[in-house]
Amino acid sequence: MNQINEMIQRQLQHRTIREFKDISISREVFDTLMEIARRTATSNGMQSYSIIRVTAPSIKKAIAEVCKQEYVGRAPELLIFMVDQFRNNNIAKEKGPTTENAADMDRFFQGFTDACLASQNVVNAAEAMDLGAVYLGSILNDPIKICEVLNLPKLTFPVVGLGIGYPNQHPQLKPRFENRLRVFENSYRIFDSYLEEIKDYDEEMTTYYDLRNANRRVDSFSDQVVTKLDTSMSNRQEILKAIRQQGFQIDI
Amino acid sequence: MNQINEMIQRQLQHRTIREFKDISISREVFDTLMEIARRTATSNGMQSYSIIRVTAPSIKKAIAEVCKQEYVGRAPELLIFMVDQFRNNNIAKEKGPTTENAADMDRFFQGFTDACLASQNVVNAAEAMDLGAVYLGSILNDPIKICEVLNLPKLTFPVVGLGIGYPNQHPQLKPRFENRLRVFENSYRIFDSYLEEIKDYDEEMTTYYDLRNANRRVDSFSDQVVTKLDTSMSNRQEILKAIRQQGFQIDI
Repeated sequence: MNQINEMIQRQLQHRTIREFKDISISREVFDTLMEIARRTATSNGMQSYSIIRVTAPSIKKAIAEVCKQEYVGRAPELLIFMVDQFRNNNIAKEKGPTTENAADMDRFFQGFTDACLASQNVVNAAEAMDLGAVYLGSILNDPIKICEVLNLPKLTFPVVGLGIGYPNQHPQLKPRFENRLRVFENSYRIFDSYLEEIKDYDEEMTTYYDLRNANRRVDSFSDQVVTKLDTSMSNRQEILKAIRQQGFQIDI
Repeated sequence: MNQINEMIQRQLQHRTIREFKDISISREVFDTLMEIARRTATSNGMQSYSIIRVTAPSIKKAIAEVCKQEYVGRAPELLIFMVDQFRNNNIAKEKGPTTENAADMDRFFQGFTDACLASQNVVNAAEAMDLGAVYLGSILNDPIKICEVLNLPKLTFPVVGLGIGYPNQHPQLKPRFENRLRVFENSYRIFDSYLEEIKDYDEEMTTYYDLRNANRRVDSFSDQVVTKLDTSMSNRQEILKAIRQQGFQIDI
């Protein structure tokens, strides 16, 4: 039971780590992380995802530019998790005439889910081995550019990036709103006033120091929501176009 | 280091568990699982996902019917993870005039990713506490029905279900293809013949006994791929329509 508590404790202590020690990850540790990815649950048993390990400095730099986060280029390990229907489609084609079903949005979402689950399983394994990780949703600032840089064929699509290494910072645990606003029983619960419900949380958030912003305090959660919802990056609005450009069928 | 190995070992031993002992999960254990969900990494810090815990037998039954898997109705815990842009949109609206950005597909994918990451974190925590879990991608057989049954408002969308309980079966570890077909360096690698590359894996798969099919051996992986790609459920092809029906902007 102590061992188990250790696992749970690590999960409860999860922090995003953006600055890493200048120590590379051993081959053995890396292979273990990838073996964990391989053992992750996968939709329909189809394993419709792949991972690209980025080691070339020029490609790291190109991805960091898409992410608009220079620390991405400094992560000891940089992984891109992706939808992969290309592989299974090729298996089917080699077996004989096949449908276009690998290109449908149902399969796209299966691959998207697979990629996400594998990434979180890898994060948990990394943290279990005293590594830290940063998720990079920002690769979707420009998915087409990511496809070009990594030579992603049709029927594949980038989902999320992960920077991994030995932590060189100790961020504060980030406040999250209470589960009564997130976990419901049998039916979605709508609250009369969300601002009222998150009042304490809004206050708590302002005591959080974000290491990215020179240790300055952050806005309240509701102010962050307003700011972030007001901001829209044009490329990020093109995600369906990019998915279609990668060969998936977007017909409505 | 022994404790850490224990974590990794559990992840490497992951199996889908579909049959559970008739023992309910304690309040304490359940709350721990939900606290793990709460601490999961989330896109942009926005926490754009929610969870519905299904306890009402009639709702469990309705969901099992969508899944076409009767064991779903018997899972001691049944959780539905969902995109939730409704909550933040309401927070923004209470603060003043707001944009329609919470409804865009960029935010949809952020919430989808959040929901997936939280589900895998919960699975790892569950397995750490000797529980077993089954992912239910099959809730997307009919997302609109799921929305109706759970009263999901606009700007929310079901992503994946999870059945959790104490395992009452010991499935064989499911064969997976090798990582050289899944993990690439710097550039996507295309193979000349996938059938050739997965020859041993195809063979290995036929030695796997799927407990769902009365202990019968399963097809080779390539045969499964052909069968599964040939099969398309019509409702599952309507996923973008369903996403639009839930209020998200699908403009291409």
